[in-house]
Amino acid sequence: MREVAIIGIGQTSVEEHWETSLRDLAAQAIAQALNDAGREKVDGLFIGNMMSGILSHQESLGALIADWSGMLGAEAFKVEAACGSGGAAIHMAVMAIASGYMDSAIAMGVEKMTETTMPETTAALATAADADFESDHGVSFVGLNALVMQRYLYEYKWKHTDFGAFSINAHGNAMGNPNARLHDRISDQDYRKSRMIADPINLLDASPTGDGAAALVLVPLDSLRGNGKPRIVIAASTAATDSIAVHDRQDGLWLAAANASAIKAYGQAGIQPEDLDLFELHDAFSIMAVLSLEACGFAERGQGPRLGLEGEIGPHGRIPIATRGGLKARGHPVGATGVYQVLEIVQQLRCEAGENQIEDARIGMAQNIGGSGSNILTHILKIV
Amino acid sequence: MREVAIIGIGQTSVEEHWETSLRDLAAQAIAQALNDAGREKVDGLFIGNMMSGILSHQESLGALIADWSGMLGAEAFKVEAACGSGGAAIHMAVMAIASGYMDSAIAMGVEKMTETTMPETTAALATAADADFESDHGVSFVGLNALVMQRYLYEYKWKHTDFGAFSINAHGNAMGNPNARLHDRISDQDYRKSRMIADPINLLDASPTGDGAAALVLVPLDSLRGNGKPRIVIAASTAATDSIAVHDRQDGLWLAAANASAIKAYGQAGIQPEDLDLFELHDAFSIMAVLSLEACGFAERGQGPRLGLEGEIGPHGRIPIATRGGLKARGHPVGATGVYQVLEIVQQLRCEAGENQIEDARIGMAQNIGGSGSNILTHILKIV
Repeated sequence: MREVAIIGIGQTSVEEHWETSLRDLAAQAIAQALNDAGREKVDGLFIGNMMSGILSHQESLGALIADWSGMLGAEAFKVEAACGSGGAAIHMAVMAIASGYMDSAIAMGVEKMTETTMPETTAALATAADADFESDHGVSFVGLNALVMQRYLYEYKWKHTDFGAFSINAHGNAMGNPNARLHDRISDQDYRKSRMIADPINLLDASPTGDGAAALVLVPLDSLRGNGKPRIVIAASTAATDSIAVHDRQDGLWLAAANASAIKAYGQAGIQPEDLDLFELHDAFSIMAVLSLEACGFAERGQGPRLGLEGEIGPHGRIPIATRGGLKARGHPVGATGVYQVLEIVQQLRCEAGENQIEDARIGMAQNIGGSGSNILTHILKIV
Repeated sequence: MREVAIIGIGQTSVEEHWETSLRDLAAQAIAQALNDAGREKVDGLFIGNMMSGILSHQESLGALIADWSGMLGAEAFKVEAACGSGGAAIHMAVMAIASGYMDSAIAMGVEKMTETTMPETTAALATAADADFESDHGVSFVGLNALVMQRYLYEYKWKHTDFGAFSINAHGNAMGNPNARLHDRISDQDYRKSRMIADPINLLDASPTGDGAAALVLVPLDSLRGNGKPRIVIAASTAATDSIAVHDRQDGLWLAAANASAIKAYGQAGIQPEDLDLFELHDAFSIMAVLSLEACGFAERGQGPRLGLEGEIGPHGRIPIATRGGLKARGHPVGATGVYQVLEIVQQLRCEAGENQIEDARIGMAQNIGGSGSNILTHILKIV
């Protein structure tokens, strides 16, 4: 099995791109990544995307984006795993290169969510839930997360206000990321006063939608000659699934697949959680940040909020998270999110994270969560 | 790179499955494939599907189907390449096993198309075309193929009636396939009298939609011990893309990606076209059967219809095609089609094709075409 290195990254800002189509967003991120890698093309493209068929009436993104980005003829596919689509695209690209079927690949994600009305986009997002047993009965995606958070508060005796640190940290970090969706520092007071969306989730618990694209150029590590630059390898690429409906789980407060995927990733990379210098987690809602930290071994069950309250998640904390804003403030262009996460770790390992730079960052983990914890992709990157 | 063998196959019939949901169709095909392979589970699932989000309000098919088929926890993803989704799922599964990331996988396809109204399904199918430059201007998928066929007739001076042999052969072969959508033998007279759909494509030029699922169990060849049974390996797994919009091509009558994918496949397998004992091609429309035969080296450009007229495509011909009915009569449950094609080659190589059995079949090729020739997957199977 060949080791896989990341040699190029590219991204658009996450915002309402009224003037830029789905294909143009993708092409912009790819052009930037190829330029960063010093290449003109790759053997194959893996496109993470969830909702293009519903929201843009466009499937067959593989062929479309290969052509639109100047790589007519290259192998190209769309990969879908709900909000985990970006991570899944990376996983596929890693396997393609590790197998020897490809000598170079682009793993990318793209999503266009703000051109449609909010009810349309909300309905499209609900296709990540169980159509027959969840969404068709009227529960939205934020509603599902609210049920989980409500139960968590009840079961472990936390107050809603104990979750504020996650959003405050994310918004603070996004100030240093020019590509972030939100650039407004928030206070604990702001968090407490924020309007309710689906009790107990308020506006500042939830990540914003957005249009965006991010891309990575992957090659076999052994194809790189030493040129003095740090070489960044994908030390682990893992996945696991759980039931798609939250009510089907034995324990709705435990992300079993996130746990399984993380344990497998630690094994592949040969590290322990405490070896990580940063963790780009999937804070689509603050409750998901907490559950992800617990599943990945950073807190005992029911104790995740403590990491926020004790300042362990900030840039100088024990496990820095959402270092460039996370889903909460960089934004959550669904199928692209998993690629943004890995891209941001590359920035940290390259010391290109500007005022967000984590000191001496050498190993980072990204965990991308599809659905309410149903499809999990975990990647660990390190410098070699 | 590890060689990959197919050790299990499963399928549902292709029809209007009013009593069976998308997830149940998938689970039935998987159960049958696992049973055939003598296994209870696999490491990962690759689900080819194009339209579940639009037509069934259900994305995240990976997690859903893994759970529903008793493999909670397994890696699982949806792969989309328009009508080439099934072939793309197989390609991903091959790379996953070849790389060593997985020691077993299911490659499957599933599509549910007949529960929605015909305008809804037609609109969903049109997402395989270029949304901005083709489908949003009103051209349907059959319309696009009609433009291509019209030009072909003009350019190479064939009459529409010269295409009848392709449909007659497919319908005839489907008589021996209990899982086929259509079981009605047709005559040249029927073909001539068939009603026009989009000039010059008539009803008997076009493949029928349908609900269906097909699954394959894949393992590394070196994990199999000799048990006397023939071992079937995937000798080639290739892909290539072309522009998604037909008008963007230099030559609208040449499937450049099909040609590239086939040439690469012949190279991987170390064979020539004449070594093939059968060819499951993508006869979504009779014009596509002709263009596919030309692109893969079985006829000179513009001479494809001759193979039909001279009886070369039948079970005893030079290159038997659509041996179990093809898209035309087995049916075309879009995202599943590419898996049905490969499954049917396995049946032939195992001598399990009943009255459709091709004598001494040892090498077969399947070519799955996404869009109007924009995303092509080619697989060559052989007995070792």
